[in-house]
Amino acid sequence: MTLENTSSNKMFGGWLKQYSHYSETVNCPMRFAIYLPPQAASQKVPVLYWLSGLTCTDENVMQKSGIQRVAAELGIAIVAPDTSPRGDNVPDDENGAYDFGLGAGFYLNATQAPFNTHYQMYDYIVKELPILIEQHFPVSQQRSVSGHSMGGHGAITIGLKNPQAYQSISAYSPICNPINCPWGQKAFNGYLGSDQTSWAQYDSSELMKNATVKIPMLVDQGSDDNFLVEQLKPESLIEAAKVQQYPLILRMQEGYDHSYFFISSFIEDHLRFHAKHLIK
Amino acid sequence: MTLENTSSNKMFGGWLKQYSHYSETVNCPMRFAIYLPPQAASQKVPVLYWLSGLTCTDENVMQKSGIQRVAAELGIAIVAPDTSPRGDNVPDDENGAYDFGLGAGFYLNATQAPFNTHYQMYDYIVKELPILIEQHFPVSQQRSVSGHSMGGHGAITIGLKNPQAYQSISAYSPICNPINCPWGQKAFNGYLGSDQTSWAQYDSSELMKNATVKIPMLVDQGSDDNFLVEQLKPESLIEAAKVQQYPLILRMQEGYDHSYFFISSFIEDHLRFHAKHLIK
Repeated sequence: MTLENTSSNKMFGGWLKQYSHYSETVNCPMRFAIYLPPQAASQKVPVLYWLSGLTCTDENVMQKSGIQRVAAELGIAIVAPDTSPRGDNVPDDENGAYDFGLGAGFYLNATQAPFNTHYQMYDYIVKELPILIEQHFPVSQQRSVSGHSMGGHGAITIGLKNPQAYQSISAYSPICNPINCPWGQKAFNGYLGSDQTSWAQYDSSELMKNATVKIPMLVDQGSDDNFLVEQLKPESLIEAAKVQQYPLILRMQEGYDHSYFFISSFIEDHLRFHAKHLIK
Repeated sequence: MTLENTSSNKMFGGWLKQYSHYSETVNCPMRFAIYLPPQAASQKVPVLYWLSGLTCTDENVMQKSGIQRVAAELGIAIVAPDTSPRGDNVPDDENGAYDFGLGAGFYLNATQAPFNTHYQMYDYIVKELPILIEQHFPVSQQRSVSGHSMGGHGAITIGLKNPQAYQSISAYSPICNPINCPWGQKAFNGYLGSDQTSWAQYDSSELMKNATVKIPMLVDQGSDDNFLVEQLKPESLIEAAKVQQYPLILRMQEGYDHSYFFISSFIEDHLRFHAKHLIK
């Protein structure tokens, strides 16, 4: 697998870099960003994978969250993939909507044509990308996963389904119960088809009901988030975690909204949380 | 003067807000952003004015620099104005270039038609905006000024010309000697006319030669900045400061470029520098 480096910026003594590569999983070129903290110059560092939300790319978290400052202090690499396959050959929402198709891969493996050829974001994130990262960069196999909104859904589902592969999970404003909200229903119907029995495998609240290996999980949710009631439904995740006695810390943050201004306000907490589990 | 609040986001316990207002100085509606730290809920706080660079608006520093985190800790309000007048009636560069006209006001008072009607950014920043801010928000009259690139030029020239109005000056990658670089020559020729005797009043290195009231100044410059040699010319400022025995701290930051990734890496230093002089 070859990587093409397309940008480099020094930040907090380390380096933020963008790469593109051809993905065999999603059958198109993919871009990702990696922040390598100063410690990576002399040792292998653990990795936090950041999964972004609807409409985002690898760039949002790297430009807006301030994550690199704390990553540089703690010695954690940050990897931010794109939120969907891209390119002229990749099918999009028929009306170009923001919540399906390009920029809206939902971190699942699509089964429905025409989306199943490219929309294999679950396998890309869980299988292809970590191998690529661990081959090409000075990183250890200690991994954690975090994300925002659709990416919070991605982080929780991927972490719960692969507890052996990640040390900890965190999320901001995650779509906690996609099978019961408009964003999730539209996406799952389009990518997975109308047979809802296939949907639960990508639903954080449903997965939580069967979680046995329990890796630590931190979730922050803004109380003034416009999407809270209709789309995010943290109460479903909380309820399932209670029944399952899952070590979920879910914090309702008074007055905060759905934006990166909210994310940046608590990014230090999330990195220190992951560091406890990534760095022994 | 009436202000219209157009956005509000909670950040680090304080509030980031955008406002628009009609400016009598530049004769059009203007937008600015203000970050009010948590301390502003119960007391008057000092203000750091941030002047952005070419092509920027009030949003760049608020989205990309991480400045609010440190402002919240130290109890400093941040005010970010736009970089030029805007609107259909405001003349732009005849070719729509990025370095003149809209987004490129250069923090001066234009004397040449058709620009002189609106491009009065010096008076807007120095006179109108602080009055507006001090009338409408819980801030003291303790002010400092900072900025990036064209905004670094703005911060240094405005601070040097008004040392009684500001406690301290800082800049990232400032255009230090605009009368001797392409960006500055184009702008000054267009806004001030071809008679170069009027140019020195807006040139940091020239002003430095006559600085008598010497407020503290911190400048950070990336060594890998693409604009360093042709446009920024910090050596002119350093030379003038030496002759004048001006308390200039100019740090060449190895490997950093011209981007907000560079700014964010040192924003904490700049705020702590200003806090020493703003908060007694």
